[in-house]
Amino acid sequence: MSKGPVVIEVTRGPVVESRHEGIAAVVRPDGTVVASWGDIDTPILPRSANKPIQAMPFVESGAVEKFGLGNEHVSLACASHNGESRHVETVRAWLKKIGLSETDLECGTHPPRLQATIEALVREGALPTPAFNNCSGKHSGFLSTAVTYGEPTKGYIKYDHPVQRRLREVMTDLCGTDANAFPYGIDGCGIPTLATPVRHLARAMATMADPSRLSSKRAEAANRIRAAISAEPFMMAGTGRFCTRINGALPGVAQVKTGAEGVFCGMLPTLELGIALKIWDGAGRAAEVAMATLLGHLGVLPAAQKDELLHPPVKNVVGLLVGEMRPAKSWLG
Amino acid sequence: MSKGPVVIEVTRGPVVESRHEGIAAVVRPDGTVVASWGDIDTPILPRSANKPIQAMPFVESGAVEKFGLGNEHVSLACASHNGESRHVETVRAWLKKIGLSETDLECGTHPPRLQATIEALVREGALPTPAFNNCSGKHSGFLSTAVTYGEPTKGYIKYDHPVQRRLREVMTDLCGTDANAFPYGIDGCGIPTLATPVRHLARAMATMADPSRLSSKRAEAANRIRAAISAEPFMMAGTGRFCTRINGALPGVAQVKTGAEGVFCGMLPTLELGIALKIWDGAGRAAEVAMATLLGHLGVLPAAQKDELLHPPVKNVVGLLVGEMRPAKSWLG
Repeated sequence: MSKGPVVIEVTRGPVVESRHEGIAAVVRPDGTVVASWGDIDTPILPRSANKPIQAMPFVESGAVEKFGLGNEHVSLACASHNGESRHVETVRAWLKKIGLSETDLECGTHPPRLQATIEALVREGALPTPAFNNCSGKHSGFLSTAVTYGEPTKGYIKYDHPVQRRLREVMTDLCGTDANAFPYGIDGCGIPTLATPVRHLARAMATMADPSRLSSKRAEAANRIRAAISAEPFMMAGTGRFCTRINGALPGVAQVKTGAEGVFCGMLPTLELGIALKIWDGAGRAAEVAMATLLGHLGVLPAAQKDELLHPPVKNVVGLLVGEMRPAKSWLG
Repeated sequence: MSKGPVVIEVTRGPVVESRHEGIAAVVRPDGTVVASWGDIDTPILPRSANKPIQAMPFVESGAVEKFGLGNEHVSLACASHNGESRHVETVRAWLKKIGLSETDLECGTHPPRLQATIEALVREGALPTPAFNNCSGKHSGFLSTAVTYGEPTKGYIKYDHPVQRRLREVMTDLCGTDANAFPYGIDGCGIPTLATPVRHLARAMATMADPSRLSSKRAEAANRIRAAISAEPFMMAGTGRFCTRINGALPGVAQVKTGAEGVFCGMLPTLELGIALKIWDGAGRAAEVAMATLLGHLGVLPAAQKDELLHPPVKNVVGLLVGEMRPAKSWLG
């Protein structure tokens, strides 16, 4: 069933200038592999691509109801956001609701992803704060969970903190193998990122898409998270972003999430499938084309976006079209 | 003689998170391959990595003497610079010397590479101009050549303009095969970039390093260009850049030049060798580690820089060391 690798090409004129390879799995909640490319037993670091799963303990805790939170907050808990003003202001208001502030976020501070936002800050003479960190929503979810359970908030990013232990418990339940046994690295935002075989990561996504075999409380949380992503696609990414575009165009049908270093995950509730993919070299540009290609292959990519998402243009400095990205003929091109 | 591919790994904790593959050749001026990895007969687009060669007709034309130019201008003609104020001011003054201005540059305008420079512009309420384009020095060289020969300056970026024809003539002489037969794409800055087998690109670099078999005028130009890069390493790149660092640390010994999409070239005059490499996925981070590894393998990497250049740290948002890049054990690790 496993075929050759995922291959994405970058052309310039008549030449294939660059080439990305990867692995991908499309899996059912019971672990059946519907399609795969490359060795899907290879463990990968999911990075931010499993944030929807990392939001599960937050929703299960009842924090959403306790603190009067809405879809925008649940979507932010799954976000790698641009640090645009709606993201930042919502995070700040959220932290206030739970009696905390930005100084409690342990994700650190980086310049917002969107150049326009950086320039707006410079014009104001302001510096970014932790709320601008693309992970600030996820971390606000972690803090909300700790507050709800009456746990210490300090150190919530550590492997042995209850917040992180709970993530491994959920991962174990969703992917059908013991996540406590996974080696791990430290993610950009400071939390452990667990080396998960692509097969199991895709199965966890499938279980999020069709949570019928989970406990009713856990299944409800998965449904709540998918609904929030569909309702608030801007909050989980932002202006111009692939995730916002796909999730906004396919409410109820697809909820996809990018991760650093070329990872992408997707939940397809109407098809009862999960997707996980990794581009070996870590290129986000190729992970996006690969996810679009898989969505097209599974028949859910909006016709209006097909051409641009499967063949994103490569332009030069003056805006001339000089090449394109595309799935290779040897893969699904 | 050809061995397995160039492989660069990116680790996070105990896990190899990402992996880059490529091809590389180390060649003598007569075309003898001293070492190679992967299929070096594959044509690649050199992009900016052959700018030192693209500066040859400019130096051969006598424009340097005619307009009273110096090492800083010759180094800029080989540059992918940061758009820092010394780069931009030197380009502006240079264009004035040849009776032209920034409006004659056909490279287009992009924000400068260095975030601090972007922010300085925003603070001033200024916008970048063509002189900020990382290729503005190369294009000033093209314009200087056209002016010296009394050719029209408009359209100097087109395949059939004498400026571009001359580049192919020099490439043919240096790499020992007809560059007019190479397919080509359009580079970021608008000029043709010729699909050159890595073997021939490395040979052209070797001929630049040891130009003794060239005509005396052409050999002099190659020597002049290498000397200018060694004398003005800041001008060909800028603050914090790999090229500036290596060329500044190894005057007379190595002159290396980066290109977009994972290309790197190097001239090693004391060893009478040329290097060309391409990382298939286009990652600059891997091309730098690969070039450092080759310089180490050839015994010219400064001991003080070895650890950091062969094993650049991967840090998270708060600055914690979470992994490293490295040449794989299967390559030269």
